Amino acid sequence: MSELTHFDAQGAAHMVDVSEKAVTARIATAAGWVKMAPETYELITSGNAKKGDVIGVARLAGIMGAKKTPDLIPLCHPLPVTKVTVDLVPDPALPGLRIEATVKTAGQTGVEMEALTAVSTAALTVYDMVKAADKGMEIGGIRVILKDGGKSGRYEAE
Amino acid sequence: MSELTHFDAQGAAHMVDVSEKAVTARIATAAGWVKMAPETYELITSGNAKKGDVIGVARLAGIMGAKKTPDLIPLCHPLPVTKVTVDLVPDPALPGLRIEATVKTAGQTGVEMEALTAVSTAALTVYDMVKAADKGMEIGGIRVILKDGGKSGRYEAE
Amino acid sequence: MSELTHFDAQGAAHMVDVSEKAVTARIATAAGWVKMAPETYELITSGNAKKGDVIGVARLAGIMGAKKTPDLIPLCHPLPVTKVTVDLVPDPALPGLRIEATVKTAGQTGVEMEALTAVSTAALTVYDMVKAADKGMEIGGIRVILKDGGKSGRYEAE
Amino acid sequence: MSELTHFDAQGAAHMVDVSEKAVTARIATAAGWVKMAPETYELITSGNAKKGDVIGVARLAGIMGAKKTPDLIPLCHPLPVTKVTVDLVPDPALPGLRIEATVKTAGQTGVEMEALTAVSTAALTVYDMVKAADKGMEIGGIRVILKDGGKSGRYEAE
Amino acid sequence: MSELTHFDAQGAAHMVDVSEKAVTARIATAAGWVKMAPETYELITSGNAKKGDVIGVARLAGIMGAKKTPDLIPLCHPLPVTKVTVDLVPDPALPGLRIEATVKTAGQTGVEMEALTAVSTAALTVYDMVKAADKGMEIGGIRVILKDGGKSGRYEAE
Amino acid sequence: MSELTHFDAQGAAHMVDVSEKAVTARIATAAGWVKMAPETYELITSGNAKKGDVIGVARLAGIMGAKKTPDLIPLCHPLPVTKVTVDLVPDPALPGLRIEATVKTAGQTGVEMEALTAVSTAALTVYDMVKAADKGMEIGGIRVILKDGGKSGRYEAE
Repeated sequence: MSELTHFDAQGAAHMVDVSEKAVTARIATAAGWVKMAPETYELITSGNAKKGDVIGVARLAGIMGAKKTPDLIPLCHPLPVTKVTVDLVPDPALPGLRIEATVKTAGQTGVEMEALTAVSTAALTVYDMVKAADKGMEIGGIRVILKDGGKSGRYEAE
Repeated sequence: MSELTHFDAQGAAHMVDVSEKAVTARIATAAGWVKMAPETYELITSGNAKKGDVIGVARLAGIMGAKKTPDLIPLCHPLPVTKVTVDLVPDPALPGLRIEATVKTAGQTGVEMEALTAVSTAALTVYDMVKAADKGMEIGGIRVILKDGGKSGRYEAE
Repeated sequence: MSELTHFDAQGAAHMVDVSEKAVTARIATAAGWVKMAPETYELITSGNAKKGDVIGVARLAGIMGAKKTPDLIPLCHPLPVTKVTVDLVPDPALPGLRIEATVKTAGQTGVEMEALTAVSTAALTVYDMVKAADKGMEIGGIRVILKDGGKSGRYEAE
Repeated sequence: MSELTHFDAQGAAHMVDVSEKAVTARIATAAGWVKMAPETYELITSGNAKKGDVIGVARLAGIMGAKKTPDLIPLCHPLPVTKVTVDLVPDPALPGLRIEATVKTAGQTGVEMEALTAVSTAALTVYDMVKAADKGMEIGGIRVILKDGGKSGRYEAE
Repeated sequence: MSELTHFDAQGAAHMVDVSEKAVTARIATAAGWVKMAPETYELITSGNAKKGDVIGVARLAGIMGAKKTPDLIPLCHPLPVTKVTVDLVPDPALPGLRIEATVKTAGQTGVEMEALTAVSTAALTVYDMVKAADKGMEIGGIRVILKDGGKSGRYEAE
Repeated sequence: MSELTHFDAQGAAHMVDVSEKAVTARIATAAGWVKMAPETYELITSGNAKKGDVIGVARLAGIMGAKKTPDLIPLCHPLPVTKVTVDLVPDPALPGLRIEATVKTAGQTGVEMEALTAVSTAALTVYDMVKAADKGMEIGGIRVILKDGGKSGRYEAE
């Protein structure tokens, strides 16, 4: 079983030394969702453009959130991301929005935290914009579904 | 049904005008969890102090995350929070960590986004510190469980 | 003629003491524009939705920019803004986009810097999104058109 | 005519994938100005050192502004800039201050947004420091005058 | 003896609840110094203006640093500061620069952390600008010399 | 004697051009301390875990502070740090805490400012958490003790 690499032998938290790791192409994809009441789902997905672009605002918040990852996550390395995409897709079966974010970089450490932060920030932004209509929304299913590049190889969620 | 207050009559996003609202005492509590493999749960909750204080680091990240809310959530008002607490409790039935955050302010708008952001940031920080051992962790159950103060009154999740 | 209040008797820059000023309702509106080639104007204003929502992204960037004002402008006081709106309107005579931002707060100092920063940030964001098509765009006309609240009274640009 | 590269085929905004682009030496220069009343121009450029160093403060704000570019401009890639200079030169014919900023990096994308943001931030800072004396100042002429490095080659404004 | 108010009964860190405390006028002054080699002291204090305004840059960095305090200090409350001044005075006996910062607010908690952060940031900025000439500089003497306002009353260092 | 490289021939501050410098492995270590009353020292170092983990919180603040260096220090280059460790060790002879921070990167400029900022931020955080018990604490001894990598070679404090 792997150790908790963010702690030293005395249990003190530190930012892991990645200076000896190779700079390689890295990619990660994370997913999540926001579940809401059926009427709320109707409200944000119906054709009436005047209701505003919830998805467009949340997508942008997710992209900007990915760039803030090293500011938010204490032991995360700063990384110059080279690509961020965030997709929000309405799912009537949820009902709600399914979110997926993909991040790329060339660096010495992976970008799964950036992808997860993008998904989380997009989900929180949906909540913020819709909360006047529905306080009972729930955010969940946040996980890494793909990670590739670097020594530990490819990871795909089952 | 309530309207989406963050959009004007043309559907353009804006920061809602709260300048006419009264300054009142506000409180909000949000919850969430990080679910992990049983072995990972053992690893972070077992008595061996040398394994490091995952909960302590995540708690601090959550508190700092609450302060970054208006930076992360595009249409959120900046608010001088007067209290933030974040608790992470191991739950063997999950197995994983249950997270709860409470935020207070005296202001013209609520602090549920601050509480939700604290929970999300704490959860992401747990993922970051434990990911070398378990990439399959999932973050979920993020929702508001209490909101009080202001015109819309008390809200408690069922 | 007024003095430069941000400098003391020795010419050293400081953040002006506003602690004795009354907390009053403040509002400011600023304006500006981005001028572009006629073909670029066509590209971003034509009906084809697939070309993407330049205006929506720039509006959001402007709102978030207003919140970053005290971070960007060294001697600016931090202020909890209570409203931000940013409008971008296509003007075929320019040709380009006309931008207007209005900011409100209840505070001890005005919000014209927040309104100007919102306009600037929205304009820079338009440039960023369109620059692959037109590097020769120009940003101008950035000025305060309305300021009210506080001891110095109402100001309206001619 | 070039397409709007920040939008995908569905019109959704994203951060452009630059991961396949070569890391090359990049440079960009942007310009702009702040126009003011003749008496205001006298006030900030006259010999009396006690009036304070408006130009020095604005120069520093511009340099720091360049570093905040990816925070301000939603779809901008974070880039480790290797040089930033900002010059503000009094121009009695304007009357006002002419601003020019040059930014360098070695990276996968250009630095014209960093140069434009440096100019804008310096201009806004001039406004902030002088506004007690002159609310009617105008910021304009913000444009790229040189861009070099990368696949699209050298660009010089006419 | 006072308790450590930032920790609860279980030893968990939290942001202290100040929501019941009165909003009162607060002021704090902190001091510190940067000690350097005699030749370095000559270099930065001699009449030659071409050597650049080390003191002016450090003063501005200190003012901006005060505004970043809640971002830097994990359990610090965000506060809208109403005044920040930073003074750097050459002291040939040190030899070096003596720094003093005063911060004011009207709030529910004191501003000594803002004053200390202003001094620290100004001192670090002096080090940064002069380090090519003198790597052996030392920063010290950082302490609160005055704190007033709020329930705990006036504190003056001996 | 070296010149002040952050100023040009006219004395204007700028961010030094490092674009021609080689990318090399860089390391720097800085040190400092927080001195306190003997009773305060007892309070934070005694066995009673309920008193809370002052050292753990300050360590994390120091690590996050290192990442904020280019935001705080105006003329500092942004750098993707690859390792940050911060150690705080109780010293009964002081009495107080001795702090040491080590930062690594692969870059075109050194990381001594990052190490110094980590030490300063950790020290300020100790002050913040303990100030209710002891306002007379002093922060000092902040200096670079090791710097290596780059053209100027190895530096070790005597």
